[in-house]
Amino acid sequence: MAPVTGAGEQMYALVERLYPLCRSITGDGVRATLRIVDEYLPLQVHEVPTGTRVLDWTVPQEWNIRDAYIADPAGNRVVDFAESSLHVLGYSVPVSATMPLSELRAHLHTLPDHPSWVPYRTSYYKRDWGFCLAQETLDALPDGEYEVRIDSTLADGHLTYAEHVVPGQVPDEVLVSCHVCHPSLANDNLAGIAVATFLAQALAEQTPYYTYRFLFAPGTIGAITWLARNKERVRGGRVKHGLVLACAGDPGSLTYKQSRRGDAEIDRVLRYVLAASGRPHRITKFTPYGYDERQFCSPGFDLGVGSLTRTPYAGYPEYHTSADSLDFVSPEAMADTLAVCREAFAVLDRDRRCLNLSPYGEPQLGRRGLYDALGGRSDTQQAQMAMLWVLNLSDGEHSLLDIAERSGLPFDTVAVAADALRGAGLIKE
Amino acid sequence: MAPVTGAGEQMYALVERLYPLCRSITGDGVRATLRIVDEYLPLQVHEVPTGTRVLDWTVPQEWNIRDAYIADPAGNRVVDFAESSLHVLGYSVPVSATMPLSELRAHLHTLPDHPSWVPYRTSYYKRDWGFCLAQETLDALPDGEYEVRIDSTLADGHLTYAEHVVPGQVPDEVLVSCHVCHPSLANDNLAGIAVATFLAQALAEQTPYYTYRFLFAPGTIGAITWLARNKERVRGGRVKHGLVLACAGDPGSLTYKQSRRGDAEIDRVLRYVLAASGRPHRITKFTPYGYDERQFCSPGFDLGVGSLTRTPYAGYPEYHTSADSLDFVSPEAMADTLAVCREAFAVLDRDRRCLNLSPYGEPQLGRRGLYDALGGRSDTQQAQMAMLWVLNLSDGEHSLLDIAERSGLPFDTVAVAADALRGAGLIKE
Amino acid sequence: MAPVTGAGEQMYALVERLYPLCRSITGDGVRATLRIVDEYLPLQVHEVPTGTRVLDWTVPQEWNIRDAYIADPAGNRVVDFAESSLHVLGYSVPVSATMPLSELRAHLHTLPDHPSWVPYRTSYYKRDWGFCLAQETLDALPDGEYEVRIDSTLADGHLTYAEHVVPGQVPDEVLVSCHVCHPSLANDNLAGIAVATFLAQALAEQTPYYTYRFLFAPGTIGAITWLARNKERVRGGRVKHGLVLACAGDPGSLTYKQSRRGDAEIDRVLRYVLAASGRPHRITKFTPYGYDERQFCSPGFDLGVGSLTRTPYAGYPEYHTSADSLDFVSPEAMADTLAVCREAFAVLDRDRRCLNLSPYGEPQLGRRGLYDALGGRSDTQQAQMAMLWVLNLSDGEHSLLDIAERSGLPFDTVAVAADALRGAGLIKE
Repeated sequence: MAPVTGAGEQMYALVERLYPLCRSITGDGVRATLRIVDEYLPLQVHEVPTGTRVLDWTVPQEWNIRDAYIADPAGNRVVDFAESSLHVLGYSVPVSATMPLSELRAHLHTLPDHPSWVPYRTSYYKRDWGFCLAQETLDALPDGEYEVRIDSTLADGHLTYAEHVVPGQVPDEVLVSCHVCHPSLANDNLAGIAVATFLAQALAEQTPYYTYRFLFAPGTIGAITWLARNKERVRGGRVKHGLVLACAGDPGSLTYKQSRRGDAEIDRVLRYVLAASGRPHRITKFTPYGYDERQFCSPGFDLGVGSLTRTPYAGYPEYHTSADSLDFVSPEAMADTLAVCREAFAVLDRDRRCLNLSPYGEPQLGRRGLYDALGGRSDTQQAQMAMLWVLNLSDGEHSLLDIAERSGLPFDTVAVAADALRGAGLIKE
Repeated sequence: MAPVTGAGEQMYALVERLYPLCRSITGDGVRATLRIVDEYLPLQVHEVPTGTRVLDWTVPQEWNIRDAYIADPAGNRVVDFAESSLHVLGYSVPVSATMPLSELRAHLHTLPDHPSWVPYRTSYYKRDWGFCLAQETLDALPDGEYEVRIDSTLADGHLTYAEHVVPGQVPDEVLVSCHVCHPSLANDNLAGIAVATFLAQALAEQTPYYTYRFLFAPGTIGAITWLARNKERVRGGRVKHGLVLACAGDPGSLTYKQSRRGDAEIDRVLRYVLAASGRPHRITKFTPYGYDERQFCSPGFDLGVGSLTRTPYAGYPEYHTSADSLDFVSPEAMADTLAVCREAFAVLDRDRRCLNLSPYGEPQLGRRGLYDALGGRSDTQQAQMAMLWVLNLSDGEHSLLDIAERSGLPFDTVAVAADALRGAGLIKE
Repeated sequence: MAPVTGAGEQMYALVERLYPLCRSITGDGVRATLRIVDEYLPLQVHEVPTGTRVLDWTVPQEWNIRDAYIADPAGNRVVDFAESSLHVLGYSVPVSATMPLSELRAHLHTLPDHPSWVPYRTSYYKRDWGFCLAQETLDALPDGEYEVRIDSTLADGHLTYAEHVVPGQVPDEVLVSCHVCHPSLANDNLAGIAVATFLAQALAEQTPYYTYRFLFAPGTIGAITWLARNKERVRGGRVKHGLVLACAGDPGSLTYKQSRRGDAEIDRVLRYVLAASGRPHRITKFTPYGYDERQFCSPGFDLGVGSLTRTPYAGYPEYHTSADSLDFVSPEAMADTLAVCREAFAVLDRDRRCLNLSPYGEPQLGRRGLYDALGGRSDTQQAQMAMLWVLNLSDGEHSLLDIAERSGLPFDTVAVAADALRGAGLIKE
């Protein structure tokens, strides 16, 4: 595997550039985000009009915001969108009003347990407006009349998402998906976007077996839109495996959430690679909550799509707050997440079921130069054992990963043995 | 669930009334028992003539007994049927004789390890006569000539059993069975009869989904007779689930003995309910011994019928002795057994496989008023999680109990979520 | 089971007779070995010509050796084949030369970690010559010119193997195989040969159910030759079960290596018998290395063949060295291995799936004299419980071993119960 020299720092730099943008499920923040990613990875950007029916949903109006603030009785901006995109309730309708604090309070969201943090809140499908602020900011506000202004637009437009395809030797696809709808939250999900970007770059270094499709889309409605537009392709079985990337940069250890099936090949690969790597990690069962695995694993699709995070969804106090800042993620953590993704796809991409073409007794490896000639010794080498295992289990039922797991030999040793046997005409895929 | 106020005391009172009667596999003791139960629960009583072929068996002659005693050389009744129905070997043929103690001994049954207890013994299928008495009574008998008299009748007649049906919304049946053939033994099985009686009352309070058939029949031959007379109905699949109730009032914790299948729905329900209830309990595997689950689970029928007891068959020293008296059972224990039965049938009765009618991606719950509008929070409520789980797993393969077990959510929460989704037209049964 | 009085000593005596012979995969050593075994067990000997195609292999030239030695500069034979057949590299081509020690070293094999032991080495499929000697012998050799002579023949001839068949009631076969190609190594595999020989004798004492075929053949090429010549019979399913016997006499505890399938009946029988016997033992998974189970379990055949050893392949330091001598094996160990084989085949030979001919409810055992007449007691005997279990599970799906395992009753008790029920016409095979 090629070294990822400096990839951690490069991913962190990308996160820093994306951090200030105000993303939502639609709007110019998403477009600006995708334009930056496009500098690293050519993207095919899709614009889907408001009102388009997508599965059970409808593409909503597009939301854009230019400014928003609360000014106190003295005219000071005490809450200001210019300071952080989190300060405005996502999808707030425009407002321009003066009202007493008592009336304003119904529109203010805080985190009393973390008084210095600003929460992240949205109201996509119910017309509302609001501000998010620190509890300590709220506590310091004097009574009086406040000026409230949100200069936003909620109007017919488009939902924006992007794809990047790494072509493979076969049209069967591996889907790698990350959500791009969260505003200034570093771990959730700028780190996921960064890892996906650099993973795509790494995969393109040599033609992989599978075709890898990277999807950068707003959460839920974006995945649903993509599924609606690709429904027949997906139902037809084109997507063989998939991975949702999120929360890829926090200091916690890695967590793989299995697909709904629980024994999909992607599940087995991630379990194998994480265990073999010796990294501390967690394997969790599927739940119909979290990120877009919810949609990919809905019962009509039931794809073999798992989700890789470090600390998972809602598993850390900084989740969906201003504390999920640039300080919360690190180049090292993102590099580690990227490395595991590469290791996993290196296994997935080589995992095959082979067929022993000489299945009656062992074929004579010695006359093919595949076996040590001197008999009687007990220190048979791993490479020879791997060949015997591949021959013995290549009955069309067992994949190379099955063989690695059953034999206890490293996957790579097994895959190399399979290559040698294929070269000798003893097995075929 | 409706409170069962006073049910324990009412069941105990029923046990007290039934206790003195001399029941056997046929005869007037069974009829008297069923007449009393009929005061609580209207019974359909069946009389099957002696000689009727029932599966591999034949309905035996009917046994009735009026009096029986052993009088010592001084003329004192030292063993007297009037004191306890246990004193006579069940199905004893008539005898009227005088004989020395040495000859009489061959007909006397005692429990040397429990010298003050009287054992319960029968000889249904081999013509014999005998008495059961305390070892200490026997030890005190002087040598001499004893008068022995059993005023019984063994003659062509009928085998008696009864049914009570609680009609449900569907004709598919749940069978609840208890044996009514044991004489003055409180736990085995007057407690079972009492719990079955009050369970039927409780189920009738509202129309259940299943039709519940309660069977009050003598052990073995009664179940075999019922199966013979219902063979085609049973083989045709009408009985979906069943539970044999016995030993329902002793101080031990609950024991569920699984059906022969081991993974029948009744097995899963009882395991789930007992575990969820937090009660100490035991789950045991099927064995072809015990109560009438032996017959219901014979390989030709192989019904999903388990058995619920407190301390199981032969698991307590008082088993089949005079120590299984009114003191051995309690209102509290019977009320607890009844409560678990009600909890189990509340689950069984609502357990369904549903089908998600909008299986591609998640349906938009928000616009149907089923989902909290404010996004970004991590404290998603259990009710919403239950809806997502029901939608995700309602593929026709998973029942609501499957969903409860897999999600870790309470069955009731899952069932309520399914009701809401059904109401919204998102799933169907 | 008949006592095996003195069988341990008799097996040891056989091992002593076979020990000095120089066996290889072909040649007169094998023939001499089979002639001695034939004194105990009539053998059908097969001779397969050099050059015969056998599966993916070709029968090699036949190797015979008359003398071999290394003489030091003083003319003393410092390594001498006459002392031990291990001293010559198996399949050494003839050599007659004088060379300095420095040149000779490339042809000398030692075990530096065990300086007094002589290793066992071969070069069947690459033309080579060599000597095996103790490291301490080598260390003591002075420099100088050495005379090297191997008086061997490598020429067209035959591969020799033998069979013995114990006829059974059915033509379905159990294959018992042991390799006969190793020279003076007592545990590997003279002990295996001896146990196989006496096992065949014991099985012939009464007509078994299965036909037992004993195979005495050189490792790998012998099994492959047998499989090639019996390919259609084997593929047609004639061989139902099998056991490879090796390393049957060392002081270690027994090890059963499961077949490739892992749940073949032979696997279940050996697991059951070893556990039930209370002997310390190990059950290991299949690996495609070891003895001829490699060939029998190749994916094209995938037979239910396991391997029974004491300490397994390469699991002891004496393995493939001169320390695997007559001192390393004992009559007791061989008798113990033989006893387990007999116990296992006693189970295998009686294991059947039966069908309850009266599957609706329990048949009335009492009127058939199969059931104790006195009811009410809790001390039901094991024999009666076994009958109930056999009746309950004889649905065509469960074998008697299944029933023994599920009931926890001894297999023998279950088999006797099945015999009684068969005698009463209640079950059939």
